[in-house]
Amino acid sequence: MGEKLKKIAKNILDHIAIAVPEIEPVLEHYSNMFDAEITPPKVILEQGIRMAYVHFENIKIELIEPLNKKSPVAKFLERNPKGAMHHFCAVTTDAEASAKSVKDNEMRTLGEPGVGHHGQKMFFLHPSDTSNILVEIVESKK
Amino acid sequence: MGEKLKKIAKNILDHIAIAVPEIEPVLEHYSNMFDAEITPPKVILEQGIRMAYVHFENIKIELIEPLNKKSPVAKFLERNPKGAMHHFCAVTTDAEASAKSVKDNEMRTLGEPGVGHHGQKMFFLHPSDTSNILVEIVESKK
Repeated sequence: MGEKLKKIAKNILDHIAIAVPEIEPVLEHYSNMFDAEITPPKVILEQGIRMAYVHFENIKIELIEPLNKKSPVAKFLERNPKGAMHHFCAVTTDAEASAKSVKDNEMRTLGEPGVGHHGQKMFFLHPSDTSNILVEIVESKK
Repeated sequence: MGEKLKKIAKNILDHIAIAVPEIEPVLEHYSNMFDAEITPPKVILEQGIRMAYVHFENIKIELIEPLNKKSPVAKFLERNPKGAMHHFCAVTTDAEASAKSVKDNEMRTLGEPGVGHHGQKMFFLHPSDTSNILVEIVESKK
């Protein structure tokens, strides 16, 4: 079965995302524990979240905090009130081609492909097609 | 407060670990979706798990499946029956020095530092000291 399917992304991960009830204490822990640079929290109104990055040499950790109870991240935190890893994100050089491969593989995206808060094209794969671990695909030149 | 504390690890992540009820379907999904190499499942009797790796260029995903209901991973899956991200792992060049920094920072390890299934020195940080996201520290020369 595998050989008939089209690859959806490169084998590079862009980030892992961790949903937390409050970003600042996590940033304080991680800046104490590691040498990693921090991108401070930023409000992303259209997604109903605040977001910060911890830059490791080989990958970023994205911290996400819901702005309100309607945010899908708030629903995730209802099931994991202390916070939990939320998704991982792989890189593609062409998000449209990737989304087409998803359909060709008879897999589904979660909602429509969109544009991330840095302007990059991205989409989520439907968790039912990925053993219930949420996977984001983001377009990146690297 | 930050500047008084000692760094515990380098800013490189070795892997992210995902606990799943059954490894094989996830391996099939991931080998379809990405170009990543796979290390097939291996039984780690002393930890009560099976384990496989998906090798991305910049990081590994470690898939862990409990062998029995006593495994701590089985308890984790009781709360997340379909699987969920379990921990992430950062690299140190000296696990003993890292464990000492943990104590000097008045943080705690989860149990005693030990030896991983590849012979590498490793320990887990106590989740209460890391905003409840489980963090492993592993000794590695890279």
